[in-house]
Amino acid sequence: MLPTMLLGFDVGGTNARALLIDAATGDVVDRDREPSRGSGEDLVATLAQMAERLVTRNSCSLSAVGCGVAGLAHRSGVVHFSPNLPGVLEYPVGPELAERLGVPVEIMNDASAGAWAEARLGAGRGSDDFILVTLGTGIGTGFVCGGRLLGGHNGFAGESGHMVVDAHGPIHHTGQRGPWEYFASGDGLGRLGRAAAEVGRFPAALADAGSPADITGFTVAEALGRGDHNAEEVFAEFCGHVALGLANLVLIFDPERIVLGGGLVSVGEPLRTGVSGHLDELILGGQYRPSVAVVLAELGDDAGALGAALWAQESVD
Amino acid sequence: MLPTMLLGFDVGGTNARALLIDAATGDVVDRDREPSRGSGEDLVATLAQMAERLVTRNSCSLSAVGCGVAGLAHRSGVVHFSPNLPGVLEYPVGPELAERLGVPVEIMNDASAGAWAEARLGAGRGSDDFILVTLGTGIGTGFVCGGRLLGGHNGFAGESGHMVVDAHGPIHHTGQRGPWEYFASGDGLGRLGRAAAEVGRFPAALADAGSPADITGFTVAEALGRGDHNAEEVFAEFCGHVALGLANLVLIFDPERIVLGGGLVSVGEPLRTGVSGHLDELILGGQYRPSVAVVLAELGDDAGALGAALWAQESVD
Repeated sequence: MLPTMLLGFDVGGTNARALLIDAATGDVVDRDREPSRGSGEDLVATLAQMAERLVTRNSCSLSAVGCGVAGLAHRSGVVHFSPNLPGVLEYPVGPELAERLGVPVEIMNDASAGAWAEARLGAGRGSDDFILVTLGTGIGTGFVCGGRLLGGHNGFAGESGHMVVDAHGPIHHTGQRGPWEYFASGDGLGRLGRAAAEVGRFPAALADAGSPADITGFTVAEALGRGDHNAEEVFAEFCGHVALGLANLVLIFDPERIVLGGGLVSVGEPLRTGVSGHLDELILGGQYRPSVAVVLAELGDDAGALGAALWAQESVD
Repeated sequence: MLPTMLLGFDVGGTNARALLIDAATGDVVDRDREPSRGSGEDLVATLAQMAERLVTRNSCSLSAVGCGVAGLAHRSGVVHFSPNLPGVLEYPVGPELAERLGVPVEIMNDASAGAWAEARLGAGRGSDDFILVTLGTGIGTGFVCGGRLLGGHNGFAGESGHMVVDAHGPIHHTGQRGPWEYFASGDGLGRLGRAAAEVGRFPAALADAGSPADITGFTVAEALGRGDHNAEEVFAEFCGHVALGLANLVLIFDPERIVLGGGLVSVGEPLRTGVSGHLDELILGGQYRPSVAVVLAELGDDAGALGAALWAQESVD
């Protein structure tokens, strides 16, 4: 009899990654990736081919398949809207993939998937109430409340990056005024870096990038890694923006812990301490509340696919 | 054998109200109220006296006691901080009352208690995912997620009124800049009314109140009830403020339903339609989401005490 595995996907705007996972141990046995562009039909075909290739290559069968996607992934498996996948609108990715593979498929928000992975195998272990916030190009959030993943009525919970924190602030590409993501994402960090460079307060970034317009969040993070003083100032402001939205979420959810994930986690300890310091100042009634632990995510880029697979297993059991 | 009842308290800044409840039917059998001022010790004595009086008067015994309090009520029964009860700080109201009465006592946030009452007996019935927002002097929120009450790690969840929505906005009495409560509470409505009156755009309120400074949310609500056109303009703006924070909560929680409660519910249908209309405009990606039903709370002033009692019963079972 063939060994039974879990399969997890994480579908981004450029690539879809696949992890084949030992259901008993959570170990990643094999991995694959393919470009993710195209229609809903294209996406299902891409995912199915990766699944079939991994199954053949590892002589196994699948017990469940999970798939994390940015945006609005309905409980039913229909991807309503994903900012990363403009060709996939109101498309039944889950049901079609399940039919094609002959196994149960769960489609879910990628940050929720990441939160579930961190809950089971990473920085959320031991806590029944924590928030994962992924700081990448945008902001994703996933919530574990009372030991359970917050899904919402449709499966759309966790779109906190779009929470308005500055109602008279600048207009974001979403059309909203002053959403948290505008300030506290990797894009927001790049914007702060460009603003500093434009007034002559970030020469190192200017030298690295060539022109102010080419400064990104990565430019700032790199300069920070070299101990650049201007980068530290920019980053301190950025951490304040991250903490502002987190303070709102702490008031709403009362978590024990906040797990910082996404690409910006590569900054490491300065991100953790920067956010934590601002957070303590910002939380109303902080003197009457235990302080919230801020920790770094542990599962890196695998979190989304891993969590989706673990969640799919849970849904089958 | 004496019949067994539940007892629910709702402790406000002026009065503590008590409801004696038939555990089997949820019917309110008797009620009482007492002033709530004083220290933690005073509060426990007041609540114990009301409990003993109700038990004697109705010849019953108590199976569980629940108590809703504004602010930070810890799961352990310790009231860490309540804006309404400045004399009660870090005080073990629950354990002391339990010892005095000889029955289990649950202390909880009043809006969470209200949400649980609406879930069981009111406007939340039939929904596993809804938000209760109480619009009174301030804003309270309670969340039912996946059929369970969101408590948070300490029991402090639901302080969404303090969510910052206008980071460069006016300073609230809490010291925060631009929290939702500043704009969208009964106090916020009064402020909008005063601002309109000061520039001559609300003569009816000025006539009612005598001076702009004496215009409150009630003044606006009364003028609205008489069909005053200026009041309608003020109220439309107010509904936009309510909807702004609710849009954030919808993005975060993905509820099926929003239940509007608190004193301002007396406005009725204009509140419901005003908030609902603005909400549909404000929710990002609304074209890809089922619209969220906005309904009025059904349990009025009893919700907090009723919900606390039902929650205490749940905790005992």
